[in-house]
Amino acid sequence: MNLYETRLSAVRAAMHENGLDALIITPGASMRYLTGFSEPGSRFLALIVPIEQPWTLVVPALNAGQAQQNPAGIMGVRAWNDATGWESVFGPLAEELKLNGSSVGLDEDMPARFVLTLQELMPTAKLTLAGAVLAPLRSRKDAGEMDALQRAAAATDALIPIAYAACRPGASEVEIALAIQQATARGGNADSFAPIIGAGVNGASPHHNTGTAQIKTGDIVILDFGAMTGGYHGDITRTVVVGTASDEAKRVYDVVYRAYSAGVAAVQPGAAAQDVDAAARKVISDTGYGDYFIHRTGHGIGLDDHETPYILAGNDTLLLPGHCFSVEPGIYLPGKFGVRLENIVTVSEDGAARVLNEAISPEIVAL
Amino acid sequence: MNLYETRLSAVRAAMHENGLDALIITPGASMRYLTGFSEPGSRFLALIVPIEQPWTLVVPALNAGQAQQNPAGIMGVRAWNDATGWESVFGPLAEELKLNGSSVGLDEDMPARFVLTLQELMPTAKLTLAGAVLAPLRSRKDAGEMDALQRAAAATDALIPIAYAACRPGASEVEIALAIQQATARGGNADSFAPIIGAGVNGASPHHNTGTAQIKTGDIVILDFGAMTGGYHGDITRTVVVGTASDEAKRVYDVVYRAYSAGVAAVQPGAAAQDVDAAARKVISDTGYGDYFIHRTGHGIGLDDHETPYILAGNDTLLLPGHCFSVEPGIYLPGKFGVRLENIVTVSEDGAARVLNEAISPEIVAL
Repeated sequence: MNLYETRLSAVRAAMHENGLDALIITPGASMRYLTGFSEPGSRFLALIVPIEQPWTLVVPALNAGQAQQNPAGIMGVRAWNDATGWESVFGPLAEELKLNGSSVGLDEDMPARFVLTLQELMPTAKLTLAGAVLAPLRSRKDAGEMDALQRAAAATDALIPIAYAACRPGASEVEIALAIQQATARGGNADSFAPIIGAGVNGASPHHNTGTAQIKTGDIVILDFGAMTGGYHGDITRTVVVGTASDEAKRVYDVVYRAYSAGVAAVQPGAAAQDVDAAARKVISDTGYGDYFIHRTGHGIGLDDHETPYILAGNDTLLLPGHCFSVEPGIYLPGKFGVRLENIVTVSEDGAARVLNEAISPEIVAL
Repeated sequence: MNLYETRLSAVRAAMHENGLDALIITPGASMRYLTGFSEPGSRFLALIVPIEQPWTLVVPALNAGQAQQNPAGIMGVRAWNDATGWESVFGPLAEELKLNGSSVGLDEDMPARFVLTLQELMPTAKLTLAGAVLAPLRSRKDAGEMDALQRAAAATDALIPIAYAACRPGASEVEIALAIQQATARGGNADSFAPIIGAGVNGASPHHNTGTAQIKTGDIVILDFGAMTGGYHGDITRTVVVGTASDEAKRVYDVVYRAYSAGVAAVQPGAAAQDVDAAARKVISDTGYGDYFIHRTGHGIGLDDHETPYILAGNDTLLLPGHCFSVEPGIYLPGKFGVRLENIVTVSEDGAARVLNEAISPEIVAL
């Protein structure tokens, strides 16, 4: 069996366990995982995976040539054209497969305009989310995926000196982001996501929109970026000071560094996702900064930059070999600054963490 | 009234006409249109617009600071955190607003994982698409939006010489795309979409994935790209030859050029979207290439790169002042090459077309 046949076989076993008769997957990470093919666009394009009958791609006519070359070797490619619409092709297929009345898992990211139309086309189908089947499979990376994630981590690490060199007084956040993006492109890679560069008080907003604010001497700067290679994402965060850090900044950095280290150390045989969150959070809470750590400790990463397993309270998913996720605690002091530190870790065969990125400095790096 | 209050008022009038009690809008162009604010991410973030009561943003805690600064001045910002989940905040709000049992329009692009959860939270709500209300409003651009689209067109036109200069024998499609993207970034703009560069036979696939194929002398090359300014998209396509065009390529180019011109000329007072498609398509069909024009003639453009009005058979939407869309016929000869020509046009106050981009050459440009 080739890679995609192996995955299809595992997916069908999981569909059987979950009582699902079919999946309808729209473009994105799950389609790439299952077929090696995906194509963005506003038109309806979907992979239909019945539990027994052959799988089929329903695609706009203008993507038919690309779809026919899908790496999974799916033979059934049905094209629709703009004049008659996708329902004219999907409808008969749904009838052949008897989807109406059956239990169908939809892609988590399928747009509402398709979801509601599918409900009209198949009024007695029971629609649920395909993630119940796909997320557990996608979250355990195989050897080839681990290699790709390691390459993405290396390509991301290679951007650190570029980011540091760009952090000069007078440089704007956007200029720093562009320097990172240009180096990413020169390396032949794509951005995992638009870099988040938060200087000074902007760093206190965890998902600050990189803007025109200029770096001032003494600023604490959050640098959050990643390179994508072979479809797999990288994602790290470093926090630096331009000039000299205040005692408060040094103290907060030390707490976040210890929280990060505790999170990584908590990845042990038998640990659950929430244990990693609890370990990192405890360090921050014990030092009185608990109210300023306002997000989960991490997220899975792979073909999506955010995917399962999510590292947060209440997630009792056991961490198993092949799981790959970020550990990224942070403290955000409104009106002052923020500190976040992030590397990607994977669970190795012995159950312990293996950090894919280069080590984080135990003390804040002064540029 | 400020811009956003004006839009809110128009939206509520349209909700009244459409029998909608509330809208739930997720991040993207519609949220930006209504509030000036939007924030990408995998977490639930939504604007709730009841027909009478105040509008509210439900946001992840880590976006609360940004949401509170929303340009529309929305006072009700309710934050949820990762530990308790978005349902813990949305649920009580839905109860206050009595959304269950009412008629609710969902953002067209809301991911299925939220759609299905909303259906569980509000089992007796009638869920439809918000586009019925928003698309007609968003499709008629006001003066400020027209200015932004004109600026996006100018920024896009400025990339043409960059693209042409990069089209040299030996250059790969990716290198040409990067040259365009780097010039876009240097101009302080973002890409409207990843450039589509299709060299030689690759041009026969309308939405070819820009790849490592190298330009050869004699190649026909499709160059489809755009710059985005102030959130508004640009989008043009030029087709060139590197070296000397064959007689067949010259003939096909001429047909597409005349189809493009006929499409633009069909934008007249009283014309419908489908008339523009029919006018362009007739030129291509009359010359025997009808089977090789495998997509609609155009798409609306604005805060989204593809939005209403779509220019295709069956769309009897009357073209009105402020409508803004692409005219982009193409002919795709499998195994040979493709030709597509595209500019953005807007319907001016007198009902005729005004082309926002620089004129397309009537004969194929040889580089």
